[in-house]
Amino acid sequence: MPNVEPKLSIGLWCTAFAGTEVFGSATRPPLDPMDNLRLIARAGAWGFNFHDDDLVPFGSDVQETDRVLQETRRVMDGEGLVASMATTNMFAHPAFKDGALTSADARVRAYARQKAMRAADMGAELGCSVFVMWGGREGLEVEASRDPREALAWYRDGVEFVARYLADSGYGMQIAIEPKPSEPRGDIFLPTAGSVLGFIATLDPAVRDRVGVNPEVQHARMVNLNFVHEVAQCLDAGKLPHIDLGAQKPGRFDQDLRFGAEDIKETFFLVKLLDDAHWDGPHAFDVKPYRSDTPDDLEDLVRGNIRSYRLLLERVDEFRADAEIQELLAECRVDAAGVPDDVDALRAFAFDVDELAARRLPYQRLDQAVVELLMGVRR
Amino acid sequence: MPNVEPKLSIGLWCTAFAGTEVFGSATRPPLDPMDNLRLIARAGAWGFNFHDDDLVPFGSDVQETDRVLQETRRVMDGEGLVASMATTNMFAHPAFKDGALTSADARVRAYARQKAMRAADMGAELGCSVFVMWGGREGLEVEASRDPREALAWYRDGVEFVARYLADSGYGMQIAIEPKPSEPRGDIFLPTAGSVLGFIATLDPAVRDRVGVNPEVQHARMVNLNFVHEVAQCLDAGKLPHIDLGAQKPGRFDQDLRFGAEDIKETFFLVKLLDDAHWDGPHAFDVKPYRSDTPDDLEDLVRGNIRSYRLLLERVDEFRADAEIQELLAECRVDAAGVPDDVDALRAFAFDVDELAARRLPYQRLDQAVVELLMGVRR
Amino acid sequence: MPNVEPKLSIGLWCTAFAGTEVFGSATRPPLDPMDNLRLIARAGAWGFNFHDDDLVPFGSDVQETDRVLQETRRVMDGEGLVASMATTNMFAHPAFKDGALTSADARVRAYARQKAMRAADMGAELGCSVFVMWGGREGLEVEASRDPREALAWYRDGVEFVARYLADSGYGMQIAIEPKPSEPRGDIFLPTAGSVLGFIATLDPAVRDRVGVNPEVQHARMVNLNFVHEVAQCLDAGKLPHIDLGAQKPGRFDQDLRFGAEDIKETFFLVKLLDDAHWDGPHAFDVKPYRSDTPDDLEDLVRGNIRSYRLLLERVDEFRADAEIQELLAECRVDAAGVPDDVDALRAFAFDVDELAARRLPYQRLDQAVVELLMGVRR
Amino acid sequence: MPNVEPKLSIGLWCTAFAGTEVFGSATRPPLDPMDNLRLIARAGAWGFNFHDDDLVPFGSDVQETDRVLQETRRVMDGEGLVASMATTNMFAHPAFKDGALTSADARVRAYARQKAMRAADMGAELGCSVFVMWGGREGLEVEASRDPREALAWYRDGVEFVARYLADSGYGMQIAIEPKPSEPRGDIFLPTAGSVLGFIATLDPAVRDRVGVNPEVQHARMVNLNFVHEVAQCLDAGKLPHIDLGAQKPGRFDQDLRFGAEDIKETFFLVKLLDDAHWDGPHAFDVKPYRSDTPDDLEDLVRGNIRSYRLLLERVDEFRADAEIQELLAECRVDAAGVPDDVDALRAFAFDVDELAARRLPYQRLDQAVVELLMGVRR
Repeated sequence: MPNVEPKLSIGLWCTAFAGTEVFGSATRPPLDPMDNLRLIARAGAWGFNFHDDDLVPFGSDVQETDRVLQETRRVMDGEGLVASMATTNMFAHPAFKDGALTSADARVRAYARQKAMRAADMGAELGCSVFVMWGGREGLEVEASRDPREALAWYRDGVEFVARYLADSGYGMQIAIEPKPSEPRGDIFLPTAGSVLGFIATLDPAVRDRVGVNPEVQHARMVNLNFVHEVAQCLDAGKLPHIDLGAQKPGRFDQDLRFGAEDIKETFFLVKLLDDAHWDGPHAFDVKPYRSDTPDDLEDLVRGNIRSYRLLLERVDEFRADAEIQELLAECRVDAAGVPDDVDALRAFAFDVDELAARRLPYQRLDQAVVELLMGVRR
Repeated sequence: MPNVEPKLSIGLWCTAFAGTEVFGSATRPPLDPMDNLRLIARAGAWGFNFHDDDLVPFGSDVQETDRVLQETRRVMDGEGLVASMATTNMFAHPAFKDGALTSADARVRAYARQKAMRAADMGAELGCSVFVMWGGREGLEVEASRDPREALAWYRDGVEFVARYLADSGYGMQIAIEPKPSEPRGDIFLPTAGSVLGFIATLDPAVRDRVGVNPEVQHARMVNLNFVHEVAQCLDAGKLPHIDLGAQKPGRFDQDLRFGAEDIKETFFLVKLLDDAHWDGPHAFDVKPYRSDTPDDLEDLVRGNIRSYRLLLERVDEFRADAEIQELLAECRVDAAGVPDDVDALRAFAFDVDELAARRLPYQRLDQAVVELLMGVRR
Repeated sequence: MPNVEPKLSIGLWCTAFAGTEVFGSATRPPLDPMDNLRLIARAGAWGFNFHDDDLVPFGSDVQETDRVLQETRRVMDGEGLVASMATTNMFAHPAFKDGALTSADARVRAYARQKAMRAADMGAELGCSVFVMWGGREGLEVEASRDPREALAWYRDGVEFVARYLADSGYGMQIAIEPKPSEPRGDIFLPTAGSVLGFIATLDPAVRDRVGVNPEVQHARMVNLNFVHEVAQCLDAGKLPHIDLGAQKPGRFDQDLRFGAEDIKETFFLVKLLDDAHWDGPHAFDVKPYRSDTPDDLEDLVRGNIRSYRLLLERVDEFRADAEIQELLAECRVDAAGVPDDVDALRAFAFDVDELAARRLPYQRLDQAVVELLMGVRR
Repeated sequence: MPNVEPKLSIGLWCTAFAGTEVFGSATRPPLDPMDNLRLIARAGAWGFNFHDDDLVPFGSDVQETDRVLQETRRVMDGEGLVASMATTNMFAHPAFKDGALTSADARVRAYARQKAMRAADMGAELGCSVFVMWGGREGLEVEASRDPREALAWYRDGVEFVARYLADSGYGMQIAIEPKPSEPRGDIFLPTAGSVLGFIATLDPAVRDRVGVNPEVQHARMVNLNFVHEVAQCLDAGKLPHIDLGAQKPGRFDQDLRFGAEDIKETFFLVKLLDDAHWDGPHAFDVKPYRSDTPDDLEDLVRGNIRSYRLLLERVDEFRADAEIQELLAECRVDAAGVPDDVDALRAFAFDVDELAARRLPYQRLDQAVVELLMGVRR
């Protein structure tokens, strides 16, 4: 039995992605947001995530926004679907072509704040618990174009503004800043989960507790970093309100493959880490259909994510129940008995370094056992 | 049942690696070559691979060399172990500090040839079928230091010399050139399996057929290339006398992890490809113990490789026997019925591009089925 | 003085790129092809390159195609602009969503051939000397979806078909296959210049001489390979009909930055290599405007490429004339005097390996001299 | 004129590196520490950096340690050389084969603390201002071997212990934790400057102010991150007591090339950032000789670093004085005039998004100007 039943959600933009990219045009027709909600619910998700523009077309007025939100609420109620996370699209419109909160144009920075306020209102209206801020355009290609310290200062101003807005509005949502190293910008500010954690430490203490990280598996894999360790650091810091799950071939453009489709071993350890930590935040699939998928394949995409998460969670149970693995793990630890704690005693203590060097660590056996467990041959 | 029973071998240098690297000294004592052979045999390997200096200490004379070879033969016979592949170490000695066959010093190039001749003699004596050439020092850090065209020309001269030596000596060994993108040099000439295939095409036709590629899983993963495709291209060209197997976290220094330890899905497709092709060359594990392994862990290392190969081969069987997977695969193909072959007819043919665009390809379902098969939940 | 005056061309798609990508919509209006030609000519380019669909809208009939080609010819004549390279767009249309020449649908493969024929006709009509084949969709995300050997066989059939078509039509164009490791596909077949060279060696000898490589700086940098060495191998093999020039931050999505914008040292050695080899093929800039560029910035983009190429060529001159650098280079070489060539003599020769190991190689000084030369402080 | 005259130092381990690595043995003889100090001083460095074991052989007693420190002091005085940074080697000895401060063996963790105390004593004795902690072995290859949260907790305990030791001993040294993503471990905890900043935020507030980051150019380039942005974040957080400078081909094993040898443009922006920030901490070259360097080339290595730093600093001056560049930069900014600050006013404000989208940003021209400035053609 897992420690926590995972809340599995998915973004509306995932299933709605029509396939347009630099080298090719759309391969699927637009997907109506209400149909999209029904599709996601039918495929077994607990909740959904959205950008303002995913639900309400860019440029809609207040009346239209309200109408869509009411309709959304009706579909949610009908399908038993939760609105888990809201976010604002600050990257698609040409106004953001050189940044939103970090634009060198003060008008763009202000416009981005306005757009974030409205998206937060929508999220609050639908009962979201998390407000994600992904700064997809907060970066550069031309190093001369910014003093990166100034960009960070603008970024901080923007995040603090939104955090204060949430607080002043009485909204309960946590902010989760999403790191990414590059794409669509050549270099994005706050490229890793660590850099977001470091950035949060510089925020106004009055709002700092409201801000955490939204790490994404794929974004760490793009630069060949270990995402289990990224997430562990967020947990260690008490700053993991949300996580984005998917898969990615390493060292490439952002693929957003189906969760579990790549790197089974490290993905298993991510699932294990989250459950070990009794983490009960929203597990959000942030994936894209293949460009070759037809509308009929979208439900398979959603179901595959959920299925792989649950299968890996079963393997976590088996890992915990595996006597040999648990013995090997126990063998790997030596407790502190007899080692001095005190500075003076420690200075004088004579360590037998050869003994320390010779200690056996049965890691080949342990790692092979994990591989075989994942392949289902230890049951 | 697999199409071909794989011949699983391992390098003497693998188990003998004592742990010395840039940042740390040896963690294990030297391993006597004869003990090493017995260890490998006991752990279940079919064969072993060696550099000249792995068996016979650098600088040994003819008498000592003969003595060691005779002893080796006795151990091989006693253990039922095959000498599968020989190679020459042209990278460890400081004489090769700036290249061996591509050194700008003609004396070093000649010395490298002499050393290769002696290693080939040893390989022939022990009955090896493959002579690997890994140009670990054939590269540079200082781009100005070489005209890369001249380096390729020297490289070609060297390979042709060795190939002629094998032919003239009546040795049956195939040459297999091993690509690697970097490490220990900043950039190594012939960085990928493709570049070796391209290089072979420029060799003297009189020796070209004797030369193929020795691709290594890890070396492709170091630059995030798809090693299944690398190996497929070697097979397609009829140039795969040998393969080096192991595992590697992507985009990093050369790790030489235990085969199967990473990237289970792509590794499965490699095993499938080799068996699909009825390939019966030597499957060589080229792995390193962890620096934390004690001598007692070395046998686990060898056994783990073999075990994972066999487990993946079982999964290949299951893939072939899986009715749903086979149906999905069939669905993905459309045959040529009705499509003109002839240029004039083809020019005039009216394709329905919208129909082509709309075709369903059940890849989400197919890929998810593969993941579940690998996790052992489709049996 | 350079050995060869470089022919500097640019693709119509470069300046016409409106900015649409996965995360954002167009930031620039469409650019009329004839205006584009004038822009390129005015900015100082010698020639231009085009996909069929860049000049003639997808789906145009023969009359419309002829009309556009005649208009193009008029503009070319008026501006003194050369049509350098033609290619066919086999990646943008949804019909190619899972491959063109390597699609598992025989109809798509045939349609791709038909489209290539028409593009070749257009190229011949405008006097192009090179026909590039970039297989942007020839790849996969789902490894199970293809036997990669079958994909290579289909690819070969397709290339041979086009090569025969060129020959049978009496067109003088060389084919240049363009490698790329990934994007838009997860993995693209023929990922590197080496893999293309290896592939060419498997082509029908009757057409093989017509086929070469179109290496691109950025595509090698995406996987952190050394593009100077890639191009050197193409030159060494006599298979460089064309080259794509630009810049790229390493290990990222395909950026297509202005030539010379990154990695000045390696870019210098590329310019030097091409001029050292007296290579006189078309130097094609394959770059994209920043998404933040307005139409007014496009001419700066074109001019910057040309300017940087010429500046680096001046540095090549200085490198050749720099007495200290030339002396250092001479110091790095030792000729073959006294080293035996013959196998028996070589076997018996006693090398002084310690002397070989101790030889001085003034590479720190040489590399520093290159850096300072590039910074303009040795003039 | 630069804002700050840079303090340029180098590590004793740099020039003393004899060339031993996984694939090859030493190419240079050992370098006596006192000779090393003289070499560094003669080559023009302001200061030097050292690991405990660089100066005093591992296992030396107190008397020997004192003797060496006195001799060191004499040489420093004679040469006018400053001891800038001290650190402890917690990675070379086999006792640290599976971690030091994060070992699962409590004895190893304690031994590592003891060793750090002694190294700190040495640093204090010689007047160092910074104590670097590079956790070269704090990582893993076998994900199952650690709960990464526990590893981080042990790491924190260790850093806090050392920080308290410095405080209690009355030492003025700042601690600088050095991130690295991998090598020698498969994955190292605290892989990036960001992750160190995030980690510092979790330290006991009583010691937190004493701890900062020691970012290294090469370690960021290994995973293709932007090191200018990494350093900017450290400056923004007020946590940059020290910096390690060198060069690195991207996406590869740790090369430690001469500063300025690669990526001239981004390196220029690093020098500019440090001077823009009036940063006056120690600029430490952390580089390695090529394995092909003889002892006679070591001075060239040291001098090259210093020379390139000064040349780039001159370019920073030129950048500031370049009228066109300064005008272009001014054009890129739009101030906040007329944009509402207040939430209610902002909510109601009507932005002209088309105008924001259409704004001209002369980045092609700006970036090209920087490239030409670096090439010395704007003087």
